Parts: sequence; structure tokens; C-alpha cells
Amino acid sequence: MIKRLVVVAGSLLTIGFSSLPAQKQKLPPPNPIQKEYQTIAERIIAGATADSAAWNKLAELTDRFGNRLSGSDALERAIDWIVARMKIEGLANAHTEPVMVPHWVRGHEKAELLQPRYLNMPMLGLGGSVATPKGGIEAEVLVVSSFDDLKAHAADARGKIVLFDVPFTNYGQTVAYRGIGANESAKVGAVATLIRTVGPFSMRNPHTGAMAPYDSTVKAIPAAAITLEDAAMLHRMQTRGQKIVVRLEMEAQMLPDAPSRNVMAELVGREKPDEVVVFGGHIDSWDVGTGAMDDGGGMVIAWEAVRLLKQLGLTPRRTIRAVGWTNEENGGRGGLAYREAHKAELAKHVAAIESDGGTFKFRGFGFSGNDSAYAVLRQIGKLLKPLGADTIFVGGGGSDIGPIMGEGVPGMSHNVDGTRYFWFHHSEADNVDKIDPKELAENVAAMAVMAYVLADLPAGLPRGGKPVR
Amino acid sequence: MIKRLVVVAGSLLTIGFSSLPAQKQKLPPPNPIQKEYQTIAERIIAGATADSAAWNKLAELTDRFGNRLSGSDALERAIDWIVARMKIEGLANAHTEPVMVPHWVRGHEKAELLQPRYLNMPMLGLGGSVATPKGGIEAEVLVVSSFDDLKAHAADARGKIVLFDVPFTNYGQTVAYRGIGANESAKVGAVATLIRTVGPFSMRNPHTGAMAPYDSTVKAIPAAAITLEDAAMLHRMQTRGQKIVVRLEMEAQMLPDAPSRNVMAELVGREKPDEVVVFGGHIDSWDVGTGAMDDGGGMVIAWEAVRLLKQLGLTPRRTIRAVGWTNEENGGRGGLAYREAHKAELAKHVAAIESDGGTFKFRGFGFSGNDSAYAVLRQIGKLLKPLGADTIFVGGGGSDIGPIMGEGVPGMSHNVDGTRYFWFHHSEADNVDKIDPKELAENVAAMAVMAYVLADLPAGLPRGGKPVR
Repeated sequence: MIKRLVVVAGSLLTIGFSSLPAQKQKLPPPNPIQKEYQTIAERIIAGATADSAAWNKLAELTDRFGNRLSGSDALERAIDWIVARMKIEGLANAHTEPVMVPHWVRGHEKAELLQPRYLNMPMLGLGGSVATPKGGIEAEVLVVSSFDDLKAHAADARGKIVLFDVPFTNYGQTVAYRGIGANESAKVGAVATLIRTVGPFSMRNPHTGAMAPYDSTVKAIPAAAITLEDAAMLHRMQTRGQKIVVRLEMEAQMLPDAPSRNVMAELVGREKPDEVVVFGGHIDSWDVGTGAMDDGGGMVIAWEAVRLLKQLGLTPRRTIRAVGWTNEENGGRGGLAYREAHKAELAKHVAAIESDGGTFKFRGFGFSGNDSAYAVLRQIGKLLKPLGADTIFVGGGGSDIGPIMGEGVPGMSHNVDGTRYFWFHHSEADNVDKIDPKELAENVAAMAVMAYVLADLPAGLPRGGKPVR
Repeated sequence: MIKRLVVVAGSLLTIGFSSLPAQKQKLPPPNPIQKEYQTIAERIIAGATADSAAWNKLAELTDRFGNRLSGSDALERAIDWIVARMKIEGLANAHTEPVMVPHWVRGHEKAELLQPRYLNMPMLGLGGSVATPKGGIEAEVLVVSSFDDLKAHAADARGKIVLFDVPFTNYGQTVAYRGIGANESAKVGAVATLIRTVGPFSMRNPHTGAMAPYDSTVKAIPAAAITLEDAAMLHRMQTRGQKIVVRLEMEAQMLPDAPSRNVMAELVGREKPDEVVVFGGHIDSWDVGTGAMDDGGGMVIAWEAVRLLKQLGLTPRRTIRAVGWTNEENGGRGGLAYREAHKAELAKHVAAIESDGGTFKFRGFGFSGNDSAYAVLRQIGKLLKPLGADTIFVGGGGSDIGPIMGEGVPGMSHNVDGTRYFWFHHSEADNVDKIDPKELAENVAAMAVMAYVLADLPAGLPRGGKPVR
């Protein structure tokens, strides 16, 4: 959740910047890092944007394996394919590292409106939800607009299915209903909960996503998302005084933890190979769509960045490691396992960069760390000007790199235009056609330049100073 | 199909107009019609835009009855509700007129990718399609990009399912594959045909729509639309040399014609009640979504326009008749029945206006008729300036009014911004949330002003002169 907020904030900042009135400015003289790396950055950008290699790779990954939920066979076969292809490409230290992951399976599910008229409502059970009792739950629906509204109507909720019809404001706010809607509904005696899909626009496509753990002091009730269209309609029906009855059937279950893996490859540093810039995205996805934008694309741009640098013969002083973390979506175990497996070398991690906000038009990087490093990053940022964004925003990170950031590794997020991100997020609509080959190539360029320079800076990224805010 | 082309052309023209550089212009003096009707037009516009009555009515119609395919119980109950409500509103001559309509039913249907990997592909059989043989059709897929491409690979098509993966250009061009894709595929020995959904943007939602009649000289093979995402993916798989196998199951059938009705009400003219301005939209829809945009909204704006004029106490010289035609989508029988039922009075039909291009931002009207009438309409158009569009485009009509236009009635189309029309069209995504209450109210205003003035002009709409082009 944290990473999304960062991305949204980044987008807002970007809008702020780009709406400044255009004025003729004298270009400032190049900073020392620009002077040093301008030519290399230009080579990298030219190389990355010369073709659609990244898009083709992402298309092949998502076409071959589809969606990749933790515990699924598709995820493991995708990881096998990635590591095999990394080896074919001659990347160094292509390997996987074991991670035990939660194994939630959706099973058959269905939501039917029975009154005031019959309607089969597209739905997605929320990740982690329990099943309904065998045969389903048939109950009257109480529609509420907020947690406060639920409290105000607590006396009406007993024995009912509570529907939170909460219009999208921003992810951080609205996702709370996905997180704790079931717990809050159970507290007032509801038998199940439905939420309006977390997203600003819908083509009657429901979105799934993880729930918070069940509150052990109340009954664990099933929870699912219905579409924006249907949630709003049920709300209008209630306003008209119509009785609403829904039948919900879910066979979701949590199986024992399953084996999965983080997958990675490197460009080994020429001077300080034990110092590492790590970057990537997560290779798992929800069990709908093909997880192209969330987050196959994030993983592919780091992988492609390493492949490109190798192809260009650009070996930095330190090592660059591209990682596909597993289980970001419903457990975060990949990020935790990475921290454990690499504990001894974290002090020598120069920085960690995560791309998990989509792979649309590049908008800069976000950074969480100290002001001395921030000053350096802002210099590096200027190298990205040809990609249309040279800003280093304050505030960065990601859920997969969160655990190592907790150990002191400076964290960065790869920021992109987020306008349509939540249209597709966690739904059947997350497919490679939503990603523009040129924009994806530019993201490869941005990540490759940033990782290369971070890994090559003679003095490394300074760690002193005060935290930037 | 004709009407869509008109709408698209209208939108393009609008874009052309609005991109003219802004310049300070002296306002021309008001034309005679402006002078005469300015005050009334302002009252109508103020009345229509004072609340969300039209949106609320459309929401209630679509919430109560959902989609309304010809032959369905929902369509007939919707018509009952409309005529009852028209009577409650005190509208004159609220009644229905019988129409026998085709009765195609979709039944169970499913499209599964079996090779190179399993995938349940969202699909919609095309309206009018035959079923697959019991147990379905399992066959290899041949993906082609065009009719020419199919001809070039005709030798490979025998026994296969032909998929037309044709990116959307404009409706008129791309819909040809929905129309005759099955016939063309059958000619080269295919066992079924799939088309890429006809639309420029997809959230993995397939769109249905009518096929052309089966060519009696070839085998009638089943036809369905799959999503943009899946069609493009299958195409990439073929390009990679992968064998593609699909299993298609469809139980579609054509039942005997069923009884339906056109529904209408009037504002009876104070001087020449037998002279009529007729306007409206179609009340039937496809059997997905709720047919809010196509075309519940078109019907509701005419109905609301009549209700509003009555409420404002504005009775024109001639009669205004709001019609909800039935069976526009798969037969056009409502328009034909209207022509037959009103044959004797068609010579006294001043004009016919159809709204069937969505109910987004108002962009003007289109007109097909003679230059003398066009000159008058352009004067009326100026009254619509407060609604943001005062243009009368050359070329107008609609499929429901096509039959009476064929008898000499001047025809007009209500034009709106068409940018997102084909995102939602004939799919589950066509719901009332896609329509803005303010824009819908402005469309009511535009239709009410146009109909009122046409019905009130002392001399009527002149019929002489040359056709406008």
C-alpha cells in the first residue's frame, strides 16, 4: 500500500510541475555528474529506445504464463522461463532463491442479485477471504457509504451482507474498505461484505486485492468486490426503498504455504563487485488479467536494463542486480526473504529501486534517504532530461524493498504517469496492450541510467546528513 | 450502421471546428428565428438544466429492467413501465403500437483457449449467430488481419476457426468483420469465426452486435467476438509459431418472432395538431450491460423534452411526438412498423430526429434534406449556443427514422461527443454511470428547443430546393 501512495503523490507533484507557466530559461551549466556521464547516458537511452525489446519480452512472458498468483504453477513456470532466458542472454549469476509463500486459491465464486431483479454480478473475492458456507449465503443487503455510515446503521446490519459503496478518491483512502471492510462488518453482525471495486473508472470489471488479516475477536466473514456500476446501482435501489437480496457463493481457501522463488541476475561490478545496486519489480500477480502492468513490466525493465548494459559493454564499478521478487501481492515474502538471504551484504547495498506503479510515461524517481544522497541523485536526474522527466521526488520506496530499507538501504521508486493505473490494477484489464512499447523502452532507459550511474560513482552514494522530507 | 457513421463524421467535424484559433469576433445580429424564439429557448434550457430529472429517469429505467433485447420479457416490462409513467405525467396520447420482432437468444456460450495454454476467454456470440454443434467446436485457429489476408491464407483455413484480429479504425470500416466475417470464413471452409471486438479500447470486455444475414450459398457457421486483449495475444502466439487451439460452445438460437411495441406520447399542437415533429431513440438494447447509452438515453431525452415542455406550459403550433422505437439493434422492425402505422400522416411529418449516438456532450444536429430547410435549421441552431454547440452538420438521420426518411420526411440526428462511445457500445460497460447528468440535461434542452421551434414555425420547415451535401 505504501508504494502506491508514493506513486500517486509523485503523479500529483508531476502535474504541479508541468502546469507551471512556460518561460524561456537559461540552461544551468551541467553539474559534475552530468559532465562525467552524459555520453554514457546518451548511449544507454539510444540503445534502450532503439527497438521494442522490452515490450516483446513482457508480451511473451505474459502471453506464455498469464497471471501468476503465489502458489500457482504458472508463477513457478514463469520463474523457470525467466532464469533460463537470463542464462541464454549470458547474464551473470542468473539464479533463484527459495521463498515459502502463502497459497490462497479463489475457487468457484458467484454473486447474484436476486431482488429486486435477477442479475449475475461480476465479482472477485478479495485475496485472503474465507469461503461462504457450502451452498452460499443468501441475505438482504445493507448499502453504506463509509465506516461512519456503517456505524450509524449498525443496528440494521445484523444478518445482512454489507456493501461499501465508496467512490474512489485515492488509493490510500479507498483501499481501507478492501482492507478492513470485512472486519468492520463482522463487528456489527454482518454475514458477508461486498465492496465497490477500488478504482476510479470501470468497464464493469471488478478488481481484487489483499484484505487485512481477519480480526481474531470477530467472525471471519467472506469478502468480495463487485463492480462500480453494480455497487452504485444497488445503492440507488436502496435509496428508492427497494429490498435488495444477494446470493454469494465463494469457495476460496488458504492452502499450506507453497515454495516459490525470487529470481535475479547481475552485471558484476569491475572494481567493487561486492557493492550492489539492486532494482526490480515483483514477478507474482493477482489471479486475473496477466499482471503486465502490475508488475511484470516493473520486473522486465530492470532485467532489460541489465541485459542492455551488458550488450553495450558498459560495466560499472559496482554490481547491478535485477530482481523479480515473488509474493508481493499477498504476503510480501519475497522482499523479506531477500533481506534474510542477503543480510550480510546489505551494508554494501548502495541503493534499492523498485518499479511497481505501472510502466506508463516516465515521470522521475522518488527517494527516501538522507540529504547528501538526495543532492547526488538530483544531479543524476538531470541525465534523464531526454526522457521527459528529470525530477527526483522526495519519498520513494516499494513494498519489496521495504524490508531492506528498514536495514538502512536507501530506497527509490520508479515513478510514472499514474492516470490510468487504477483502471486496470488487479483486474482482468491488466494486460500488455495497456503498455506503450516506446514508454516501456524509455522506462528501461531511465532505470538503466540511474542504476549504472549509482553503481559507478567513484565515491558511491553518500550516506550522511539529515533525512530529506 | 448508417447512423454510426454519421455520428462519427459529426464528431470529426466538431473537432475541426473547435480547433479553429480563438479570435475576437463581432457577434452577428440575431437572425429572425433567434429574435422570435430566444426567450422561449432560454426558458427551456433553464428548465432542462435545473435538475437531474433525465438522469434519474434513465437510471431508474435501466436499474429496474436492465438490458432489453428484442423478444425479452425485460423489454416488454420496460415498455409497460414507460407508458404507465407517461400517463402518470399526464402526457397526451401515451400509448404503444404493436411490432413483431426477431427473437434471437444467446443461451450458454463459452470460448476456451486450449493450446498453447488454457484460458477462459470472455466472449459474446454475435447477434443472429447459429449455435455450435452440441458439445462445441474444437479446432485450430487461423488468425488473419483482414479479408485480403484471409484470401491470401485461404488454403490454410479449411476446418479451422478463423479469427479476424482487426484493429479498430472507425466503426464503418471495422464493423464489416462483424457483419460478414462468418460468411467470408465459411467460403474458405472455416468451421467458426471469431472477431476482435469492434472498439478502440478494452478492459477485456467483449462487444456483441448484429451480423449480416447468412449467405445461403455457404454453410452458416457460428460467430463470436472475443476481447481486443485476447485477439491480439492469439495473433502474437501465431506469429511466434505456436499452435493455437480453441474450444467454442454456443447455444444461440433464433426463435419465432415475438410481439413487441413502439411506445410514444405527445404534446398536441395548438393550431395544426395533425402536423408532427417526431423524435426519440430506441428502447431495445443488446443483452449485455443495461443499454443506458445505446439507447435508453436517446429515448429518455425525447420523452423528458416533451414532459418539460408540458411542464413549462409551452404548446407549439404543431404536435411533438416522443417515440421509443423497438428492435433497432437486430431487425429495425420498430422503424418499419412506425412507417406503416403512420403512413397516412407522413406527408404531414415536419421532421424526424433520432438520438442514437450516445448522450455525451452535445455537439449539434445533423440534417439530411433540402437547402431551404437547412437554412432554417441553421437559424434554429443559433438558439443552442448556450449549450456549447450551434452547428447543424450536413448529413443526419438514424436507423429508426430511416424508413420514414425514405418517404420524404426530413431527417436529423442528435450529435454528441463520440470519443468514448465505442468503448461501451454493445458491452457490459454500457451503464448509466457513463453518462453525466449535466450533459444529459443539456441534451434534453437541445432536443426540446429544436423540436419546439420546428413544431412552432409559422410557415413550417420549407421542403423546396436542392439536397444539401
